[in-house]
Amino acid sequence: MAHRTGRRRSGLVTLAGDLGWAYAAQLKAVLVRTVAPGRLIDLAHDLPAHRVGEAAFVVRAMAQRFPAGTIHVVVVDPGVGGRRAPIAIACHDGSALVGPDNGVLAPLVEALGGGVAYRLDPQRLHAPARVGTTFDGRDLFAPAAARLAAGARAAALGPRTSFRRLDLPPPVRRRAGAVGTVVHADRFGNLITDIPTGWVPGSVRGLSSRVRGRTRAVRWTTSYEAGGRGRLLGLGSSFGTVELAVGEGRAADRLGAGTGDRVRLAWPVPRSRRGVKR
Amino acid sequence: MAHRTGRRRSGLVTLAGDLGWAYAAQLKAVLVRTVAPGRLIDLAHDLPAHRVGEAAFVVRAMAQRFPAGTIHVVVVDPGVGGRRAPIAIACHDGSALVGPDNGVLAPLVEALGGGVAYRLDPQRLHAPARVGTTFDGRDLFAPAAARLAAGARAAALGPRTSFRRLDLPPPVRRRAGAVGTVVHADRFGNLITDIPTGWVPGSVRGLSSRVRGRTRAVRWTTSYEAGGRGRLLGLGSSFGTVELAVGEGRAADRLGAGTGDRVRLAWPVPRSRRGVKR
Amino acid sequence: MAHRTGRRRSGLVTLAGDLGWAYAAQLKAVLVRTVAPGRLIDLAHDLPAHRVGEAAFVVRAMAQRFPAGTIHVVVVDPGVGGRRAPIAIACHDGSALVGPDNGVLAPLVEALGGGVAYRLDPQRLHAPARVGTTFDGRDLFAPAAARLAAGARAAALGPRTSFRRLDLPPPVRRRAGAVGTVVHADRFGNLITDIPTGWVPGSVRGLSSRVRGRTRAVRWTTSYEAGGRGRLLGLGSSFGTVELAVGEGRAADRLGAGTGDRVRLAWPVPRSRRGVKR
Repeated sequence: MAHRTGRRRSGLVTLAGDLGWAYAAQLKAVLVRTVAPGRLIDLAHDLPAHRVGEAAFVVRAMAQRFPAGTIHVVVVDPGVGGRRAPIAIACHDGSALVGPDNGVLAPLVEALGGGVAYRLDPQRLHAPARVGTTFDGRDLFAPAAARLAAGARAAALGPRTSFRRLDLPPPVRRRAGAVGTVVHADRFGNLITDIPTGWVPGSVRGLSSRVRGRTRAVRWTTSYEAGGRGRLLGLGSSFGTVELAVGEGRAADRLGAGTGDRVRLAWPVPRSRRGVKR
Repeated sequence: MAHRTGRRRSGLVTLAGDLGWAYAAQLKAVLVRTVAPGRLIDLAHDLPAHRVGEAAFVVRAMAQRFPAGTIHVVVVDPGVGGRRAPIAIACHDGSALVGPDNGVLAPLVEALGGGVAYRLDPQRLHAPARVGTTFDGRDLFAPAAARLAAGARAAALGPRTSFRRLDLPPPVRRRAGAVGTVVHADRFGNLITDIPTGWVPGSVRGLSSRVRGRTRAVRWTTSYEAGGRGRLLGLGSSFGTVELAVGEGRAADRLGAGTGDRVRLAWPVPRSRRGVKR
Repeated sequence: MAHRTGRRRSGLVTLAGDLGWAYAAQLKAVLVRTVAPGRLIDLAHDLPAHRVGEAAFVVRAMAQRFPAGTIHVVVVDPGVGGRRAPIAIACHDGSALVGPDNGVLAPLVEALGGGVAYRLDPQRLHAPARVGTTFDGRDLFAPAAARLAAGARAAALGPRTSFRRLDLPPPVRRRAGAVGTVVHADRFGNLITDIPTGWVPGSVRGLSSRVRGRTRAVRWTTSYEAGGRGRLLGLGSSFGTVELAVGEGRAADRLGAGTGDRVRLAWPVPRSRRGVKR
């Protein structure tokens, strides 16, 4: 039952979260004691503070293409010091994840084919005494990752446990449209939804979006510059889902919208299907 | 004709752009499949979004002192998905550059002694299928850099092509002054111009600047603290060009100016030259 | 007298400061000429600009747990080009620090057991000619660190000198309270003071804080979520000192306070001590 993921390690350890660089540096001081510093990879430390759902989406995108067997440490942990458990997850592909059990790891686990969670037992981490109760990233997660990188199995770090999934309403497909959610507002102000790009018929050139009570025309395109300055655009994002953008502008500002907002898309019924009915 | 730059690689790959860390992380997942992670160097991922000209200036400053043979990946790419070509440039010093053909690479190519460009052919990159059309950094540039790092020549990645230069008006030298442009506003609010420091006579202690229609006295100095708090200063910047700064303050805020603004400097005619005339 | 710290190097070089990533990249170009890039570790480049005291506190927290023998380069240098000296400090644990002599290195030196300072002599750094006078990070500190990483002793880089300490008023312990200073406002808006957590009696559940002339009730707790949304909290921070926070909010905004502000804490006299007196 204990998964022997230690055999298939890539030797890489990635770091991601909302800690900012100064706190993240303190994880590195712990990790370099067992990990060659050249094997530590900074993903992002500036994820939106405390937004577990958005971070989970971005973390999956950042981490899922790394070689199997990589150790991913994720610290987006508003509940630190409270009841949520510190966990390590041995993924079936040989990767291991370390972080808080608040759902931030769940989409990545799924993308990596599932895994088994263990609740970190501070006594088994060989870590120095904790300073305060507010920084499990440094005091528990980094020591756990250091032990995994040194060859320990996740099962050696604590008892088996279940782990929390995110309860997100899935996007809904309609006859000529879809309803979904903004799951990420990126650096450029683009609004990334969870509506699969593949749901939009290939023949579509324009559609309408309804966000925050207002319906707008959207040009469906493949580049930000196609529609001209200031135009509201829809594109197939790099996440595989529909994205709303503004030519040379910021969709988040234009629509006054952000992560968590609902998005309704409607597109014309394809001609062929209309023809059959009439 | 095909440049055999593969022989002189430093083994280093640098990453720079305006993507932010979360998107940049996705390039790393691709690169570590052929590049030892310790050879990946983050330059900056927070360059001002979509500002090709300013990024070109900063990229040159960041990259030009790296060892010959380094691979530099630059992603400032507002035209992604559109007509601009994805390119690799084999520089004559053995370095290779990868990015969009929008001018962002041009000053660096020149600083490295020139080079030859090739248009990236997705079919020759051995890359996974693209997801969307908005992220050539992950889908084309990182795979291209991975192939170069593995020893491929730039000529193997696509057909030879020309590459775009930036059309910037050069700074103009006058009898006792100069006219130039702010090419970078840095983190501290300092305004970096393109006017060579060497144009300012060594004897100068004060000069005047005209920016956004207003003329101000500027103390010409060698340290930010020399002029006292709040004083407008001129210095020889670390880029080799004149910089405007404010003691313990931000010149960009004081002058209401930024990248792209024109700057006219005037300094007293040196005593010796005046003497000759009169 | 010359300390032979060269023998105990960890081989690691860390970089920290307020330069931002673009300027910091220029240090890396220098360093990779003698340091394997996998041994360069970015701590943080986004420390608050020019705030020497706060940076000194954060730098100590980031760097002090790295292996003995690490080289730490710190660039928070508002006085660059002026009278403050560029220095290297050979610490008694074998670590070496490089940066400006403005106090930013002092708390870290103390945490590492003390050390001996040397004033960097540009002529002994084997560095290229300086460009301007505003970037000693690139022109002096990086070359000095490169030489140290290559095995040179700090004593070989210039004459012995003293180094500046920070003159900070120490926190004061009172009968049932303490007076201290906010030394760091972190990314989450938490206010980190210099008042040792150990001064707060274990039995305390609530206390009062006086900041910027206003007294407020504070719940003393061990997690940010314990007090409910919007509640003012006191916790033992990860720095070993008292921290003020707001549940799901930002204490810096709520209290209108930041680094440098004085904090007075008062807690109930423990029952046992009260009993003795009466």
